[in-house]
Amino acid sequence: MSTAQLTIAASTVWVVVAAVLVMFMQAGFAFLEAGLTRMKNVGHIAAKNVLIFALASLVYFVVGYGMAFGDGGNGFVGGSGFFPSIDDLTTVGQAPFSWFGEIPASAGYLFEVVFCGVSLAIVWGAMAERTKLWVYFAFGVVFTLVYSIVSHWIWSPDGWLFSLGMQDFAGSTVVHYQGALAALAGAILLGPRIGKFVDGKPNAIPGHNMAFTTLGVLILWFGWFGFNPGSTLGVDFGGVGFFAYVALNTNLAAAAGVLGAVATSWIVIRKPDLSMMLNGAVAALVAITAACAFVAPYAAIVIGLVAGVIVVLGVLLVEKVRIDDPIGALAAHGMAGVWGTLSLGLLALPGQATSLATGSGGLLYGAGLHQLGVQVLGLAVVGVFTFSVSFGALWVMKATFGIRTEPEHETAGLDVSEHGMWGYPEFYIPVPGGYGSDAHGHLGLSPPGAPAGALAHASIAHPEPAR
Amino acid sequence: MSTAQLTIAASTVWVVVAAVLVMFMQAGFAFLEAGLTRMKNVGHIAAKNVLIFALASLVYFVVGYGMAFGDGGNGFVGGSGFFPSIDDLTTVGQAPFSWFGEIPASAGYLFEVVFCGVSLAIVWGAMAERTKLWVYFAFGVVFTLVYSIVSHWIWSPDGWLFSLGMQDFAGSTVVHYQGALAALAGAILLGPRIGKFVDGKPNAIPGHNMAFTTLGVLILWFGWFGFNPGSTLGVDFGGVGFFAYVALNTNLAAAAGVLGAVATSWIVIRKPDLSMMLNGAVAALVAITAACAFVAPYAAIVIGLVAGVIVVLGVLLVEKVRIDDPIGALAAHGMAGVWGTLSLGLLALPGQATSLATGSGGLLYGAGLHQLGVQVLGLAVVGVFTFSVSFGALWVMKATFGIRTEPEHETAGLDVSEHGMWGYPEFYIPVPGGYGSDAHGHLGLSPPGAPAGALAHASIAHPEPAR
Amino acid sequence: MSTAQLTIAASTVWVVVAAVLVMFMQAGFAFLEAGLTRMKNVGHIAAKNVLIFALASLVYFVVGYGMAFGDGGNGFVGGSGFFPSIDDLTTVGQAPFSWFGEIPASAGYLFEVVFCGVSLAIVWGAMAERTKLWVYFAFGVVFTLVYSIVSHWIWSPDGWLFSLGMQDFAGSTVVHYQGALAALAGAILLGPRIGKFVDGKPNAIPGHNMAFTTLGVLILWFGWFGFNPGSTLGVDFGGVGFFAYVALNTNLAAAAGVLGAVATSWIVIRKPDLSMMLNGAVAALVAITAACAFVAPYAAIVIGLVAGVIVVLGVLLVEKVRIDDPIGALAAHGMAGVWGTLSLGLLALPGQATSLATGSGGLLYGAGLHQLGVQVLGLAVVGVFTFSVSFGALWVMKATFGIRTEPEHETAGLDVSEHGMWGYPEFYIPVPGGYGSDAHGHLGLSPPGAPAGALAHASIAHPEPAR
Repeated sequence: MSTAQLTIAASTVWVVVAAVLVMFMQAGFAFLEAGLTRMKNVGHIAAKNVLIFALASLVYFVVGYGMAFGDGGNGFVGGSGFFPSIDDLTTVGQAPFSWFGEIPASAGYLFEVVFCGVSLAIVWGAMAERTKLWVYFAFGVVFTLVYSIVSHWIWSPDGWLFSLGMQDFAGSTVVHYQGALAALAGAILLGPRIGKFVDGKPNAIPGHNMAFTTLGVLILWFGWFGFNPGSTLGVDFGGVGFFAYVALNTNLAAAAGVLGAVATSWIVIRKPDLSMMLNGAVAALVAITAACAFVAPYAAIVIGLVAGVIVVLGVLLVEKVRIDDPIGALAAHGMAGVWGTLSLGLLALPGQATSLATGSGGLLYGAGLHQLGVQVLGLAVVGVFTFSVSFGALWVMKATFGIRTEPEHETAGLDVSEHGMWGYPEFYIPVPGGYGSDAHGHLGLSPPGAPAGALAHASIAHPEPAR
Repeated sequence: MSTAQLTIAASTVWVVVAAVLVMFMQAGFAFLEAGLTRMKNVGHIAAKNVLIFALASLVYFVVGYGMAFGDGGNGFVGGSGFFPSIDDLTTVGQAPFSWFGEIPASAGYLFEVVFCGVSLAIVWGAMAERTKLWVYFAFGVVFTLVYSIVSHWIWSPDGWLFSLGMQDFAGSTVVHYQGALAALAGAILLGPRIGKFVDGKPNAIPGHNMAFTTLGVLILWFGWFGFNPGSTLGVDFGGVGFFAYVALNTNLAAAAGVLGAVATSWIVIRKPDLSMMLNGAVAALVAITAACAFVAPYAAIVIGLVAGVIVVLGVLLVEKVRIDDPIGALAAHGMAGVWGTLSLGLLALPGQATSLATGSGGLLYGAGLHQLGVQVLGLAVVGVFTFSVSFGALWVMKATFGIRTEPEHETAGLDVSEHGMWGYPEFYIPVPGGYGSDAHGHLGLSPPGAPAGALAHASIAHPEPAR
Repeated sequence: MSTAQLTIAASTVWVVVAAVLVMFMQAGFAFLEAGLTRMKNVGHIAAKNVLIFALASLVYFVVGYGMAFGDGGNGFVGGSGFFPSIDDLTTVGQAPFSWFGEIPASAGYLFEVVFCGVSLAIVWGAMAERTKLWVYFAFGVVFTLVYSIVSHWIWSPDGWLFSLGMQDFAGSTVVHYQGALAALAGAILLGPRIGKFVDGKPNAIPGHNMAFTTLGVLILWFGWFGFNPGSTLGVDFGGVGFFAYVALNTNLAAAAGVLGAVATSWIVIRKPDLSMMLNGAVAALVAITAACAFVAPYAAIVIGLVAGVIVVLGVLLVEKVRIDDPIGALAAHGMAGVWGTLSLGLLALPGQATSLATGSGGLLYGAGLHQLGVQVLGLAVVGVFTFSVSFGALWVMKATFGIRTEPEHETAGLDVSEHGMWGYPEFYIPVPGGYGSDAHGHLGLSPPGAPAGALAHASIAHPEPAR
């Protein structure tokens, strides 16, 4: 191969590997969420990540990719590349996806669709344990389109926020803040889970498996080495091998976030809470996502550390305002996403920012308020757009078919009520309250389509212990 | 390095990374299978994947690799490269493995041995929860040899099916259909698990952990990004960076398979069953494996969607004919593997098929019946060969030392009976039936080699709950 | 890009991917350890891996990397590169990290910090289930510094053991043996867990989840494909694509280790114990780590097989001398690390050893005792240095604030006592013994900082089963 072809080859290897790492973050979210919720919903919570990634993969292929990155659109939305052909996908730097200069458009699809999948995974975190299954399908489509539009604004060279100089290297705003905005709309419209707020007082509803949560967070950290460094979209962006520096900043921030969260937890709730500590890593990774290519190592540490503080206080704040967010998505992705987007306006190195993108340096380097200003503008406009479209769509869904499961189904758990099966058929699953269940949590709901014998088995699954 | 050396370097990076992703599919199978089976067998089910991958790694190194890809054999089997030396393994495009033109033979071994490991993992799925441990060793060796021979037929340029024009890009037939054929032989010879069919009626024996199954499927999906795109065996097969297109087709098919299976499940068994949905992803990945490099994106979606339908109907059909396949391997790998192999004969793009391999275009592109015909021939011959050798070998094993565990061991679980330990010593493990067990499932089997105190601990592991 | 730039690009892709695989080994250790310990500690055991990797990431960045690989030091310690800047990190082959000739210093940091994290993870295995949380912070810093010094001795071209010709390709000594030395110091100073040795007789305290342990081991095996082959630090070390050969040797050894351990277990304790089998893979991977680039394939098999035997006998020996090592770290990382380091002195191919490093060939190739001698010297000096510094530091910690949790906290479990929460709040957690707990293991410890309702929930989490 020629050196030009080798550049494409090396960049494509890097971007495809990075995309694959990001795809695996679906397992991270599945286990983070399953660990932080209850046994009776475990199958539903984990497996719905497979469902929504599947949905997003197809919707993004058919329309999203063209809306986000297709040639010939305008500042608001892309204009070609819908349901692309094999020829569209195997060319490099040509219509309809001429923006991807060093990789084939197929690699661009892979890398971008997994980001869409991450943003969508965030949405459902705050809506966990009480959302009807059909909503995942319907709102999944809506959100994929919203996401594609906003990613065009900020990441496409045609996008209006990109043109103004907004910088969001790997998506603190595009992916995480957006996901949290829809999550907020959902959590408000759904209301809290049964038993979360009793007589105005919040009750902890602990997640059932901290090992799962730990696995989820480690998979996310692992996947973020694709998320941020892969956003170079090639091996020579910013200099040959510069993506390794992006990975280094990512790791420093995550590490600082863990320590920031554990220290804050120790001070504020007087124990080094494990879920806070783990969410500290996630929040820091979210925060460094915008600025990872533009800041010095010390700044990455500061950004991560502050994110670790933010997530602990944020989780407590969300609870205080009576919003039920079972996995802390609003704090970890929303507040940390805002912080990350702003931090770039404060801490971007002038040299990095101007050479690598449309932006300028950060306020603390004496580069003025321009970068910070456009970051604030971006957050405001995306906030209004994504929240109001999400709220509107979910409001219509609530007003028509309903978005929340029946109380007895919520109490029984979504595994049996939505899927007609048990996620953990042999573990003893406690169901607080009553709703006609016996002490095993068996509702006497005969799952309509369950294979013969399912309940018969379930009823022998928890025999009385020997005396 | 020169550009020729850089081509080797980039290709080797890609193929080694792909091989490593495929190796990790062992964890995918371990958790898919452990999740779909019962608590009392969990340690055995999960850990035996480590055992059989170890076995396959050595057998394939000593004889399999040479049988599959060694130079100087004939259409039936390779003829050199047995127990290769460091010199054999560090050369590129030379004897005894001259076929691997852009990567050292060591990278070829890595990439091929993990495929053999996947095929072997499939075998045990349908034989789960009732097979004696020695069978894993003995049949593991037999199957590795059978696998190596058939992979020579289809993948080696010397192979007789390759010469006829059969196409199976990453192994719908070689890996998945073959694994399912041996699994079928095993399931027939073993017979169903105790309690699976009572008075002629099938009983569901639900898997104990849908979170594990979800993790397994997500790991498989992740690993398949090595499986299919890595089968380019280099960075410029089909054009520079073409492997990204293969990855894209793989993702589209998997996504369509999830939706196909969930819709079919909703219609046929009236609930969106999670295990069906998850098996839909697997079946679609299996089906697209043959054709991933040869079809248009729409065709990848069709192939995946149909596979999602097939797996649901297939699981029900297998149950109807009284075969007990605990994890659905016969449907997900066998039937979907057949569909994928045939789909290529229908949907292969003429341009892709002729430029990239020995094949011709698909029937639906007016390229005639040749490709479809040779695919049918390949399925028929491989079906007869692999099933009959597997059946024969297992029949001899059954007739001599026996392949099925004693009923009381099956009831107690293979963890304690085969390994003398508990996979979950602190969880309460229900054991239906009796066979002399107390309600804890303790058989009073003193695991002969258990370290002192193991049973003492077990007996305090499930104390009576407080009143 | 030029061919020189492409060499850097390809090498950086490879090393960054390898580093990411090694980082994921934290999940491997988390699940290996969590699976081999008890339910009541599961959150603590798993999540502390996140904490210590975070700590190591920052300490190594600030001082460790410069101590290990910074230019201008001496044979004992590096002398520059502390808290490196973006300029320091984005250059290739220049001060302060001129040793990394084909990759930017940022990629060097990534690759080296994850090794430090692995070594640190090993330490805590033998100290599991009874160590106070503050010790993780304090000794984590101490060990990171010790590790950095010893890695300078053996891996830096300035290091005194490197100069003598010691070879340890990917760290059997540097990473594994060192971790085990500190683990031994900790296990001795802590003493055994309550109930481990009663009336002088050892009791098995089985790990609670063999599926977790299996996942952990498969993740470690997966990650080791970064660990060993990535230690080429480029794509052309030893020849273009030679890293694939290193991966092949790694896989052969691991496979042989599984078979060696399962056979030894069958013979010695009369059952194919799963934890022994799984530890066999780990021990073999540890052992091949030193020699993976220097030996023939048959030798890799021998090294792995012997390591599989060693780990079974080693676990029994450690128990016999009344040291309580809950996860077998002393055998799997310590004894196998010693064996691997020595094996290189026996089996290194003369051609490989002289062309690739400072070493000479192994004794069995008639190359004399030099290589074996320097390996022995290295083991002895590192043994004395790392053990005595670790023992001293932990002794001071024990004498001042104490390193072992109170007995009632150990009995209740570290999740509730150290973190004020339950790792598995809905699973029934048996607590043997008493210490004032009720049968649910509730100590009546009101976790001070727990959110309101945590205990209320916990107390309904295990209702009495229905009659």
